[in-house]
Formats: sequence, structure tokens, C-alpha cells
Amino acid sequence: MTRVHVIGTGLLGTSLGLALRRLGDDVTLEDISPTHAALARDLGAGRLPDGPVDPELVVVATPPDVTAHCVAGALRRWPSAAVTDLASVKGAVLDALRDAGTDLTRYCGSHPMAGRERSGAVSGRHDLFDGRAWVLTPTTETDPAVVALVTAVARSAGSAVSTLAPEHHDAAVAAVSHVPQLAASLVAARLERLDDAAVALAGQGLRDVTRIAASDPGLWTQILAGNAPAVRDVLTALVDDLGRVVDALDELSTSSDAPGARGTLARAIAAGNAGHARIPGKHGAAPTAYTTVRVLIPDEPGQLGRLFADIAVIGTNIEEFHLDHGLGQPFGLAEVDVVPAAAAGLAHALADRGWRLHG
Amino acid sequence: MTRVHVIGTGLLGTSLGLALRRLGDDVTLEDISPTHAALARDLGAGRLPDGPVDPELVVVATPPDVTAHCVAGALRRWPSAAVTDLASVKGAVLDALRDAGTDLTRYCGSHPMAGRERSGAVSGRHDLFDGRAWVLTPTTETDPAVVALVTAVARSAGSAVSTLAPEHHDAAVAAVSHVPQLAASLVAARLERLDDAAVALAGQGLRDVTRIAASDPGLWTQILAGNAPAVRDVLTALVDDLGRVVDALDELSTSSDAPGARGTLARAIAAGNAGHARIPGKHGAAPTAYTTVRVLIPDEPGQLGRLFADIAVIGTNIEEFHLDHGLGQPFGLAEVDVVPAAAAGLAHALADRGWRLHG
Repeated sequence: MTRVHVIGTGLLGTSLGLALRRLGDDVTLEDISPTHAALARDLGAGRLPDGPVDPELVVVATPPDVTAHCVAGALRRWPSAAVTDLASVKGAVLDALRDAGTDLTRYCGSHPMAGRERSGAVSGRHDLFDGRAWVLTPTTETDPAVVALVTAVARSAGSAVSTLAPEHHDAAVAAVSHVPQLAASLVAARLERLDDAAVALAGQGLRDVTRIAASDPGLWTQILAGNAPAVRDVLTALVDDLGRVVDALDELSTSSDAPGARGTLARAIAAGNAGHARIPGKHGAAPTAYTTVRVLIPDEPGQLGRLFADIAVIGTNIEEFHLDHGLGQPFGLAEVDVVPAAAAGLAHALADRGWRLHG
Repeated sequence: MTRVHVIGTGLLGTSLGLALRRLGDDVTLEDISPTHAALARDLGAGRLPDGPVDPELVVVATPPDVTAHCVAGALRRWPSAAVTDLASVKGAVLDALRDAGTDLTRYCGSHPMAGRERSGAVSGRHDLFDGRAWVLTPTTETDPAVVALVTAVARSAGSAVSTLAPEHHDAAVAAVSHVPQLAASLVAARLERLDDAAVALAGQGLRDVTRIAASDPGLWTQILAGNAPAVRDVLTALVDDLGRVVDALDELSTSSDAPGARGTLARAIAAGNAGHARIPGKHGAAPTAYTTVRVLIPDEPGQLGRLFADIAVIGTNIEEFHLDHGLGQPFGLAEVDVVPAAAAGLAHALADRGWRLHG
């Protein structure tokens, strides 16, 4: 049983309390809003202390713009406790603490890769962190015992813990999260003034590229502003790459010969192949090449259920699954990814059961 | 029964022959390679004529770089036949025909939005066009009877036919297909030199944004080069938008105050919201806001089947479905999108059946 004090009872703080209380940890709660704190308590995230508390670990789960201030306050209030925070950008918090001359021995920043599209205590879930990565960002000043305690608590909450230097973490999320978000948003923004007939040609590729373009502008403004230097660096490199492609397209627009221009285009797509191949697949393992079995699904309730029931009977494990919808047609196209050795058998068995295979 | 002559027996030509022969059309085949033509014949895509043929419609299904040449040849060889082509970019073909002084009365360009990651006659499928959009791009010179004939044949092949002006088509596919491809490729390319610990933080957002980055560089070089002016225009606008974001991030990197910079970021994400909302949902209908029910799936064969069987029993229709995998965890996260009115009932019914809901 660990004594954990949570400052900030929004989505993350409340969810962390709920997760730790599953295991019997003593969780105390604090929020600048007494109403929010009481709500989190009522939801079962922990208790509101009557007097002073003596936590082993203080978790600062406030909005990013007050995180450093709250971390510094927690280090002063509890002179022997470990302190962590959950902000999604780490360098800015650390810089502010250093600028204030804070002793960083008992501080270990962290970032659970968990969230929801809704916020507030009422959206808290005891399983929010289950199976999610939780990155710890200790510095050379951080006491190893503090790292060990934050690791233990993050694992108790259900997360897979890894460790990165703060600037390494910020550069990583710039490349794998913040710049992809901007690219998706601005590709989608190009559709804003397109006419309906043009937008009607959208296929699954566009839907995939722009799915996260539906994200909340307020939240993302905070995230991007908090990681501005790292995002700028990756985005500048992306803009440079796109600029080279624009130049090549410009040459091809004025001369069909345009020596070298096709090479620039081919290298851009090939570099994307190489980068894409590095993305971990299922379970964080090395990327696996799956084989896709495509099945036409009549648009009637229960048809997908029938497909999955048939696949379960056939005994094939589904690695990935996508559902695509044809334009104006009364059926969809299910893409079932399986290990290559299982594909032919699955296709035959599905055809035997009357499914129409496609492609 | 329509007499259709197909020039070029690759994936599209062979698939079209297979599709039309389902309905008893008289399909004759031609390819610069006698081996390829004989293979398509052997696969059932049509017959190889002994002597002259008298087609009502000639379909040019060659690689894009010889399309205009073959269309002009077909118009000369068959002075009363209609001629179409299947190239994915229409303006370049038309320009080349006009430059050669071709009479365009009997020509109607077209673009079936169908393809596979494999090419050649052997990859041909009779259902390749089923449920796919097939865009016709007639000009003011095109005889309406020619448009009617191409429409009828495209519908016979299973497609949903729409009509756009050629330059309108090319601008549309630049925005909904070609620029998204470049953005996905170049976002993925930024991962190429990232270390493993950083790439390990990749989540479903990045996977979605970069899925099509696995596409073939050779094919995409042809497509992009063939639509260079339209792609350049959309890409230039995207680069300008990204440049404004880089400037805002630059200001935020040097001053945490940076008046106006946060507004630029918020407007970029909000414009993405607006563009994303325009993408047609299922069946080409107006976009629908679905509610997502998230279910934890143990990583054992048959679990997805059990989920879908349960959903079928509950009677809820699934609108969209995604499977996400946690990092290093023995389970996945299924995202089941349903109409909002059905979400709460589905969630309760699944929980009753022992499913762990998430978020």
C-alpha cells in the first residue's frame, strides 16, 4: 500500500486515483476547486484529508500551464516525498523548475500516453492507463529511489513504463504525435472549401490520414505551444521535404521532361515506405507484414457479427481489421489482416461459407 | 450485349473484361505483349480476335504515359466507336489529344476509383469495380451518346458513376488523394532516423495518418507527375499553412508570451475540424457523428468473434470499427462506432455480457 497524494482531480488525476484504489493504495485528493475534489472523492478516486497528509508520492495532474508551479510547491510542502507530474510535454516544466532554482532530487517527470476526448473527474476511468505506455523522464539529479517509486505506481495503474531523457521525450512526441496531428489537420483543412462533388471522391486513404483532424483545438493549442521548439524542428524538416516536392511538381508543370523531378517524387514516397516500416505493430513488437483478406459485407445488421463468428469457427486470429464503405453502395468492404500463412485458408473457408471475397 | 474492345490487359483491363463477361458482353482483348493478352484470355477476361473487330466501345487501359497515344490511335482505327480511358489523371491525356488536333466527339475520359496493391492480369478480379466510384470526364465536344455508353458499361462493371469536368476531377483527386499521400509519406519519412525508444511511443493516430505511406513509389511517381500542376497548387497551399504554424511555433520558442501565436495554432486545428467534417461517411451520405464504444479484447483467438456475435445478438449496427493494440499488453482495444442513440444501450449490454469497457 503506497500513500499517494493527487493534486488536480481532472480526467487524469481522477482516473489515477480510481486505478490505484483498485489495489488498495491510500489516495488523497486535492484540487483548487473544492467541488471538483469532492466529485472525485464521490466517484471513488480517493479521500479528502482532514488535516496534513504524509504522502510517499505526490502526483501533479494539473493543466500544463501551472504544472511547474505546483511541482515546486509540492517539493516544498513535503520535504521527503517524491513528486511527479503528468504533463504531455516535459522540457518546459523542467526549465521552469530549474529557472526557479528548485532542487530536482525528488522530482521525476512522467507522461502517461492515455487520454480521452472528454475531460473532468466525471470522465475518469479506473482503466484509463491499462496497457498504455507511461514514459518517465528522470534527470541526472533524480534520486533512483524516486524513479523506482514512480515506476511502481505507474505499473500499479496498469501502464507499461519506459524511460527517456526529457528532451528526448519531447522530440519523440513531436515526431510521432504533434507533427502528425498538424499534418492531418492541415490536409483536412484543404477540404474546407472543396465542392461536394470533389469531396465525394474521398476514399479510405483520406479518412485514415485525417481521422485525428477531429481533435480539440483548445487542448492541442496547449500541447503544441508547450512543445514549440521540438515541434518547430520536426515541422521545419517536413516543410523542407514538402518544398522539394513542390519544386519537382513545378518543374513537371512547365516541362514534361524535367530531369531529376521524378526522382525527387520517388525518393519522397520511398522515404515514407522506410519510415512507415519502423512503426511498431501489434503489442509493440517489430512490424509484421500481414496479408489482407477482403470480404464484401451486405449492409444489414448482424452481417459483421456473422463474419466474425465464421472467422472464429474457422479458427483464424485477426491481427488488424478495417471496414471500408463503397460510394453509394449497399455494402461495405471488410479488410481482415491475418498472418500470411493463414490467408489462403481463411479465404477459402469464407468462400465456402458463402462470403463474397474481393481483391 | 455490348461489344467492348480492351487495349491493355493489366490489372484494370483484365478486371474490366472479367466484370463485363459476367453479363455476357462480347469483350475482345489487345495488348502490346502477346503473352499478357493470352494470359488475360486464359483467365476469362475476353477473346483474342482472329481478324478486325467492330467494337461499340474501346477502353484504353494502358499505363498513363502512353494513354493519349493509344486513345488517338483507337479513334482513328474505329471511326464510329466510342473511346474511353482509365488513367487516374485526366487533364494531361486531354491536353495531349488536343495538341495532336484530335476530334474529341467520340472520346470520354474516365477514372474508376479502383485498384489493388498488385498489378498485372493475374491480379485481375471480376469484382474490382463493385461499389467503387467511376468518374466520367466528358468535355463540351463529347457526344452525349458516348457518355451514355461509357456510363452503361461502367455501371455494368459494378461501379457508381459520376461526372466531373476533367480539370475539376484532377483538382479533386489532388486534394482528396494525391496531397494526402504526400503528407502521409513525408510524415512517415520523419520517423526514418528516429531511434527505437522514440518510435515506440507511436499510437493509433500515427498509424492512421501514415498507413498509406506503404504505397508503391513507382506507381505514385507516375500519378503525381501526371497531375503535377493540380498537386502543386494544393501542396503549395498546404506548405503555406504549415509555414504559418512554423512561424507561430518559432515565436513561442523564443517568447512564452508571443501574442497571436496561440491563435494561429488554434485556427489550424479548427480548420482541420471543419475540413474533416466534410468527408462523406458511410455510403457517401452526409457525414454522421458516431459515438464510440471502447471494449478491451483479450488477445486470444475467437474473442473478436465473440464480441461481434454479442453485438449482433444485442442488435446494434456497427458503423465503423477500429482495432488498437496497447503497448506490450496482451489485449487490444476495439473501437466500435455506432449511432449516438445506440451507444449507451450497447455499452450496458456488453458490460452485462462480461466485456470490459474502456474510456
